[in-house]
Amino acid sequence: MVFLKNCWYCAGWSSELTDKPIGYKMLDQDVVLYRKKDGSVVAVSGICRHRFAPLADGKVVDDKIECPYHGLQYDETGSCVYNPHGSGKIPPRADLESYSVIEKSGAIWIWMGDSEKADASKIPDFDFVSDRENWSGLTGYLRIEANYQLVIDNLMDLTHAAYLHPTTVGQSPDAWIGDMKMEHKCFVEGDILTSDYVFFNSPPTPLLELFTDIEVGDIYTPMILYPASTMILDMYMTTPKGAKSEGVAMPSCHFLVPESDNSCHYFYAISRNVKLDDDEITAAMGALVGRAFIDEDALIIKKCQEAMGNADFFDLKPVILETDIAAVRARRMLQKMINAEKS
Amino acid sequence: MVFLKNCWYCAGWSSELTDKPIGYKMLDQDVVLYRKKDGSVVAVSGICRHRFAPLADGKVVDDKIECPYHGLQYDETGSCVYNPHGSGKIPPRADLESYSVIEKSGAIWIWMGDSEKADASKIPDFDFVSDRENWSGLTGYLRIEANYQLVIDNLMDLTHAAYLHPTTVGQSPDAWIGDMKMEHKCFVEGDILTSDYVFFNSPPTPLLELFTDIEVGDIYTPMILYPASTMILDMYMTTPKGAKSEGVAMPSCHFLVPESDNSCHYFYAISRNVKLDDDEITAAMGALVGRAFIDEDALIIKKCQEAMGNADFFDLKPVILETDIAAVRARRMLQKMINAEKS
Amino acid sequence: MVFLKNCWYCAGWSSELTDKPIGYKMLDQDVVLYRKKDGSVVAVSGICRHRFAPLADGKVVDDKIECPYHGLQYDETGSCVYNPHGSGKIPPRADLESYSVIEKSGAIWIWMGDSEKADASKIPDFDFVSDRENWSGLTGYLRIEANYQLVIDNLMDLTHAAYLHPTTVGQSPDAWIGDMKMEHKCFVEGDILTSDYVFFNSPPTPLLELFTDIEVGDIYTPMILYPASTMILDMYMTTPKGAKSEGVAMPSCHFLVPESDNSCHYFYAISRNVKLDDDEITAAMGALVGRAFIDEDALIIKKCQEAMGNADFFDLKPVILETDIAAVRARRMLQKMINAEKS
Repeated sequence: MVFLKNCWYCAGWSSELTDKPIGYKMLDQDVVLYRKKDGSVVAVSGICRHRFAPLADGKVVDDKIECPYHGLQYDETGSCVYNPHGSGKIPPRADLESYSVIEKSGAIWIWMGDSEKADASKIPDFDFVSDRENWSGLTGYLRIEANYQLVIDNLMDLTHAAYLHPTTVGQSPDAWIGDMKMEHKCFVEGDILTSDYVFFNSPPTPLLELFTDIEVGDIYTPMILYPASTMILDMYMTTPKGAKSEGVAMPSCHFLVPESDNSCHYFYAISRNVKLDDDEITAAMGALVGRAFIDEDALIIKKCQEAMGNADFFDLKPVILETDIAAVRARRMLQKMINAEKS
Repeated sequence: MVFLKNCWYCAGWSSELTDKPIGYKMLDQDVVLYRKKDGSVVAVSGICRHRFAPLADGKVVDDKIECPYHGLQYDETGSCVYNPHGSGKIPPRADLESYSVIEKSGAIWIWMGDSEKADASKIPDFDFVSDRENWSGLTGYLRIEANYQLVIDNLMDLTHAAYLHPTTVGQSPDAWIGDMKMEHKCFVEGDILTSDYVFFNSPPTPLLELFTDIEVGDIYTPMILYPASTMILDMYMTTPKGAKSEGVAMPSCHFLVPESDNSCHYFYAISRNVKLDDDEITAAMGALVGRAFIDEDALIIKKCQEAMGNADFFDLKPVILETDIAAVRARRMLQKMINAEKS
Repeated sequence: MVFLKNCWYCAGWSSELTDKPIGYKMLDQDVVLYRKKDGSVVAVSGICRHRFAPLADGKVVDDKIECPYHGLQYDETGSCVYNPHGSGKIPPRADLESYSVIEKSGAIWIWMGDSEKADASKIPDFDFVSDRENWSGLTGYLRIEANYQLVIDNLMDLTHAAYLHPTTVGQSPDAWIGDMKMEHKCFVEGDILTSDYVFFNSPPTPLLELFTDIEVGDIYTPMILYPASTMILDMYMTTPKGAKSEGVAMPSCHFLVPESDNSCHYFYAISRNVKLDDDEITAAMGALVGRAFIDEDALIIKKCQEAMGNADFFDLKPVILETDIAAVRARRMLQKMINAEKS
């Protein structure tokens, strides 16, 4: 499979990266990341050029990453700068790939393509992870054994929540009573695609119930996709027809990174703007979100992938519903960008 | 591999199917089964046409199966009859396959081929599972990681019991003393193949010992194959040269269903016609049979499959013994039926 | 992959083989070994010619190996000599392969190629495993999920010990102080390749510390390779410039056997010539060596293999260091022998 290379992918949460190296396979390539003494982040290819040992198993020595097998050291540009053996001569052709990397909004961002095209302004700007004065919440990670586009499909169509998540982040269809109704809009601004569901006259989901007293209100759930696969759900709930400023906000991040054709990384974060000091609410949010993402989403998406085998999604002639509009648009937009990159 | 489609395969025990859907992969196809309110059984293809989610993870709502992912509902004919989203329009091309299914003799039977050819009279007729007035026993299931024909081979040649099952359902060669002798016949009636071993002047196997006092007698073990892979062992033991009516009977079912080339389902049942109310005997039978089928048969058959890889059995030029006559005949008969179905 | 067939491979330790059969896959072939009543060792192919059951799961009856499935028996030449079924006729074409096998120096050696070329004098001669009067130590086994040549590479270049094994069988680079220095020679005698490291003015490794009081001395580590993959490390430590006879010796065996392209067997042994009666030292050696080989070597070599996939080592254009000289020479020598065998 061909992945979009000239775009920013999340490579973890800033708060979690130290001088202890962390390795990921991203876009079928091994990458290792670590933090230098001055706080800056290094990202280089993760396999030693000598005997193919994983550098993530090594350690950082004076801001250089040392191979765990024979001790070759590489600097932040990927250059081999130290050979402890024999005459100590640096071997030719020993350099690693190095990648542009930036920290912004509490996350680490990596550019796997042409560094000259890396444009930091394309990284989404949000404060609900890094600004702990005004927001409380949590960050997390899971690995999903499915193509990342199946996860985008999932997130662009939140109607699945009623069926897959009735006791966590969604609401049973049985709860749809009285004046409740739903509206959906899908629109593109530049490269950014939004799938915007609004649920009017709705009770809160089990997750919102943890910190709001609104018994019936309007839930806004604009899911914003920054291609390839960086998504932010700018969710909030108000009293019926109430102002956003008087409601509660629960924004969340859904940052996907292709690992291989049939697996991906999922970095997530979720915050709230009320009851900031209540750690029990934060723990309860973490538990509900964990169940929703791991036991519900990741499990069924993996099974869908298994049923699909290695076939292309559209080749399988899936039945497309009206509610798939945003997911299909996301796939077409992404395919166009990948095609443009190849040519 | 090509499987025989126009035949009945067991799809579980009647007593175990409720309105909670159960999924199997059979003949490389996903199938889901459930029971309607009126007691009838539905069998449809097990993968939602929308996003390929497994319907066996869904639930039954008003006799319709609801997809666990986005809530599409399908009826017993496989037609999509409800779309809870958007305008609610039923999408075209959304129907599932539906399969003929029948309950008989305590088991559920599915016909994966052309429904018009489904002939209920071809399902074997036996009462020792469903008639709990006159029989006691148990039903079970295991999955074997081997081609189903290797299991047929195993069952058509019970001489393996002396070596593989000396402490469970067979007898050590060391126990063959005095006047003991064995006779074997193999014969075909219509489509039905019987491999009939009789052991004269034999002590009972450990399994028979659980409920018979006969110390030496004749054990009759006709194994009857209804192709493709439905087998009944109509076993009984008498005093030497005694009448069947005065002996003990221990009939058993061995219903195999190909899952994939190298795996199969094994639905089994075993009953006795004496000491019907003794639950301890039933539990002891279950334990011995479990050991015999899981720890002994399934394990060695899996290892044989591993040694064979993906090669065709005859291509490997196996050494054929006289005692393989019934197994070889079963393979030839089945191949002929598969060839006829293809042409 | 093509393996060298006309050479001796270790097939286990003499002390561990009884009449209970042991099976290995070696050079992609199944082999089963057992000891006869007269003490001699039998090695024949490990899969029954009847239905491909693993003979290692069977038992030895009167010096013959009996198939666990249907009881066919094979003698030490691989001939089928007993069929318990039907007329008892021995089927044609039922014979197993038999292999030349010899016991020497406490190990069992098998020749997988042309028996006529089997030359017992090519088996290395050493006494530190079998002579428990003068040596104490232990034998062990592990399976490595990597091509055996990656393990040879590892052992021919002991400079990895400083990085991978600083707390077990190596020494941290930080311990290299004062007058410490290292010399390396690589030389061939006949078919035998030696990679000889000497560490002058060195503290003992954690492993040597278990039984030597020398605080600083010279450590000699000649690693001797008998192709394909039999290695002996004739290690000893002396006081600075001291005589070998006054130092301590800690020789070890590293006998590799290809299992498949990407997996191998590793039979190891390690002995010392001092404090022979101290079982606690022996246990501590076993624990340290286990950590070094399993948690350190086997783990990183497996990860290197994963990073390499199924590619040929040289096709991946590895960076070659001066310290790889012996490993590269071993690979070239082995390739030459394999080519000669093919032609």
